[in-house]
Amino acid sequence: MHVLITGAAGMIGRKLAMRLAEDGELNGTPIDRLTLVDVLAPPQPEEFGGKIEALSADIGDPTTVRSAVAKRPDVIFHLAAVVSGEAELDFDKGMRVNFHASRGLLEAVRAVGDGYRPRLVFSSSIAVFGAPFPDAIPDDFLAAPLTSYGMQKAMVELLLADYTRRGFLEGVGIRLPSIVVRPGPPNQAASGFFSSIIREPLNGKEATLPVDQNILHWYASPRAAVGFLVHAAELTKEELGPRINLTMPGVCCTVGEQIAALRRVAGDRVAARIRPAPDPFVARIVAGWPCRFDPRRALALGFRAEASFDEIIRIHIVDELGGSFVH
Amino acid sequence: MHVLITGAAGMIGRKLAMRLAEDGELNGTPIDRLTLVDVLAPPQPEEFGGKIEALSADIGDPTTVRSAVAKRPDVIFHLAAVVSGEAELDFDKGMRVNFHASRGLLEAVRAVGDGYRPRLVFSSSIAVFGAPFPDAIPDDFLAAPLTSYGMQKAMVELLLADYTRRGFLEGVGIRLPSIVVRPGPPNQAASGFFSSIIREPLNGKEATLPVDQNILHWYASPRAAVGFLVHAAELTKEELGPRINLTMPGVCCTVGEQIAALRRVAGDRVAARIRPAPDPFVARIVAGWPCRFDPRRALALGFRAEASFDEIIRIHIVDELGGSFVH
Repeated sequence: MHVLITGAAGMIGRKLAMRLAEDGELNGTPIDRLTLVDVLAPPQPEEFGGKIEALSADIGDPTTVRSAVAKRPDVIFHLAAVVSGEAELDFDKGMRVNFHASRGLLEAVRAVGDGYRPRLVFSSSIAVFGAPFPDAIPDDFLAAPLTSYGMQKAMVELLLADYTRRGFLEGVGIRLPSIVVRPGPPNQAASGFFSSIIREPLNGKEATLPVDQNILHWYASPRAAVGFLVHAAELTKEELGPRINLTMPGVCCTVGEQIAALRRVAGDRVAARIRPAPDPFVARIVAGWPCRFDPRRALALGFRAEASFDEIIRIHIVDELGGSFVH
Repeated sequence: MHVLITGAAGMIGRKLAMRLAEDGELNGTPIDRLTLVDVLAPPQPEEFGGKIEALSADIGDPTTVRSAVAKRPDVIFHLAAVVSGEAELDFDKGMRVNFHASRGLLEAVRAVGDGYRPRLVFSSSIAVFGAPFPDAIPDDFLAAPLTSYGMQKAMVELLLADYTRRGFLEGVGIRLPSIVVRPGPPNQAASGFFSSIIREPLNGKEATLPVDQNILHWYASPRAAVGFLVHAAELTKEELGPRINLTMPGVCCTVGEQIAALRRVAGDRVAARIRPAPDPFVARIVAGWPCRFDPRRALALGFRAEASFDEIIRIHIVDELGGSFVH
């Protein structure tokens, strides 16, 4: 099996490549070839026994996309994207990367023709939803995004579903919760603080909190996100049905509950490293984001997230910090 | 006030141009200029006292769009589209006209800049919705179209809402019911038979019915559709709020009830001119279409359709047949 990952240098992309290399198989079929594409050269997992190709290329360039798809990968994980904050500040860049590059990828697959119909797993986002919300958002709730990022993801979902319906490919769109705790330096995502208020204190550093503690949100760990992607690649067309875009399960809690979990897992001194620093730009974006879902279809299809925010923090300590942190 | 209509040679476009020319004003402001664009030269309403320009041009051509928008119309009615059946048979044409041309129009408006922020009324469709449905579809139901036409309309809705949110223009998307009774020759819309089973018998001709009589659907007259468009142009930003795409009210009835209404209005001999002729292609498309809505927001905002299918037939007889028909 040949697997292609776009956005393979990103946080989720790197972890997905490592997981696939370690597993050595997907859905019971051995993986003999991995193609990793990103604007920055993606790191290559060391454990992998098959052929690996890491390309530094712009997914928005039709030549890049066509040549990646010409090799007929059986499964494509399309993760490449400009994050929410950047797509809001630079409308044209967000449209180019998040929408047009995605459309180009779908078209490149369709152009191969000749019975080529790969599974294409698209990382969408709960940012496709916009306030006002019911108490728990059902699977048949409208996508009325309040960011350009959410709009671009929602448009790709529509395209993906129609390309799937027409038999051009086999798409699955998975709407990721906010993925925490992100390792490494902060990115431009407006949701970055959800991670940094956990990550920085565990590293002995101060973190700033740009929003109110009563902000409610929907989370899963990077490990769960990779699990969602792999599981999405394994579902059959029959299991999916015509509505191929799915809201993923997650942990619902307030920022205050995040901080309480940090205190339980790591102690008072760590939790005291969070300092309020209100940021109206971030607060305005986050205020329109969804809080709580009732993701019945994803649960019925076997997608699983963590059971608590404590568990999300413990996964971060194990997966990223080698099991210890700065007390 | 300067008004631009795309798709002005279409059935709704012609009626809208005539209505605006007769009214001579929109929302209390005199109309001094009408620009009508379509691939075929749009007919010019005779009653109009202001300046009129009728252009035969492809709305998918960036030069056409830029020059139409460069004159800064205050209100743009964007009706140009390839119908559902054609968009299903020719995917690329549907994408080009229904999606890319619409995106080009929004971009052309944005490119003018300099505070230019017209009201843009977009004729969307209830084809943005796809089965399965609840008994009455609420305003916050997801758009999961089952035709490429519906997908293209749903994508433009998302763009329109984001361009509005960002202040590039003032958009309103109105999801039209199936518009019946369409005058003139049939077009390629899969919904064409909903009109022809009324129109042809009233003209003394036989009509074929490609679907089962228990098919339930959502209707409004051409007169109501024009009313929706004009009303949409008159709403304020404050009245609309962030969710600018609205499902229009309509009459819900089965094909059997349509035929019963025809019998009540025009008699048994007319209704007997309908002949069943099952067509699996049309039946498959129509089966995924929505039936009944609970369009609370549109009703609260003052949009009004007919009260019964009998009324829709009577409007056709008055507006298109000069008050009489072939008994």
